[in-house]
Amino acid sequence: MSTTAQLRHQPRLIVHTGDGKGKSTAAFGSGLRGWAQGWSIGVFQFIKSGKWHAGEQKAYEQLNLAHETTGVGGPVEWQCFGPGWTWLHSTEGADQEAMAREGWDHVCAQLAAQTHRLYILDEFAHVLAKGWLDVDEVVKTLASRPGCQHVVVTGRHCPQELIDTADLVTSMDKIKHPFDKGERGQAGIEW
Amino acid sequence: MSTTAQLRHQPRLIVHTGDGKGKSTAAFGSGLRGWAQGWSIGVFQFIKSGKWHAGEQKAYEQLNLAHETTGVGGPVEWQCFGPGWTWLHSTEGADQEAMAREGWDHVCAQLAAQTHRLYILDEFAHVLAKGWLDVDEVVKTLASRPGCQHVVVTGRHCPQELIDTADLVTSMDKIKHPFDKGERGQAGIEW
Repeated sequence: MSTTAQLRHQPRLIVHTGDGKGKSTAAFGSGLRGWAQGWSIGVFQFIKSGKWHAGEQKAYEQLNLAHETTGVGGPVEWQCFGPGWTWLHSTEGADQEAMAREGWDHVCAQLAAQTHRLYILDEFAHVLAKGWLDVDEVVKTLASRPGCQHVVVTGRHCPQELIDTADLVTSMDKIKHPFDKGERGQAGIEW
Repeated sequence: MSTTAQLRHQPRLIVHTGDGKGKSTAAFGSGLRGWAQGWSIGVFQFIKSGKWHAGEQKAYEQLNLAHETTGVGGPVEWQCFGPGWTWLHSTEGADQEAMAREGWDHVCAQLAAQTHRLYILDEFAHVLAKGWLDVDEVVKTLASRPGCQHVVVTGRHCPQELIDTADLVTSMDKIKHPFDKGERGQAGIEW
């Protein structure tokens, strides 16, 4: 029989998908909880543009610094594997696949070594939807990861195979967005 | 004619609703962006239980401390106005309405004084849905707030009047949740 403590430490595979806002922001928000528990957090951006998540990265850098200097919370690793890409200007090409592969290989090595307690694979669902990685291989690797490592995958158009394997799936759906009225992105809100 | 800078500094009223996870976590995630911009952030919890958002609060306290000691980012105010309440054990009674009113009065005073650049009113939609405050009064106050103050409201069952007034509305919808299989909440994931 499992103890309550054991039941409260099951590895979770979590997906945030849908066409609305909040997929990545909710992942970064939930990372705060893990950080506060003293967990090692790995954030891996699979799509990167100049301002993309720069604010969140700055905040996490401070949290990592707080951990290093005072021991509060946990350590944070933040890496970008995505090409210079935005929703508006996509630079198609083999380099995207190569960067996705490089990022995924890095994550695979860390999962095998149990480097982090929580991984945020930002826009990784989008990478899978684009066909830049083999979905079956990814799902198999995630499903067989050792120990108690939580993984949060964000991105639109998440492949059904990953949804089937995930423990928790939320769809962030747009009800209303000011861009629909032609309004501009807001500093501090969109980035 | 408005400049791009002006167009990029429009006050936003944002709602995160729906029955899925991520409403509050996305709000706390987007607060990181505002913090990184150097904004003053006000977080007001309208529902509070022992562990509820304790991790996020700890992280924001560190960010506020980083601001106070090194000047990075912005200041953070975090207050709880909700009763000791969870989804499982609701203590119904007049105290809930009184606490909601106290919290809302505090927010009204701050909006009038333009205290913060970003307000996170956590579970406030739920408070409105419960009828603890007058929705018309709340919507009128939010719609007529002065300056460039962004407001994020989270919670289930957001009243239509608030959705109609909001600039950006996202519904976090559950596709799959481990509680459906009878699994326990996870430290670092649920709190």
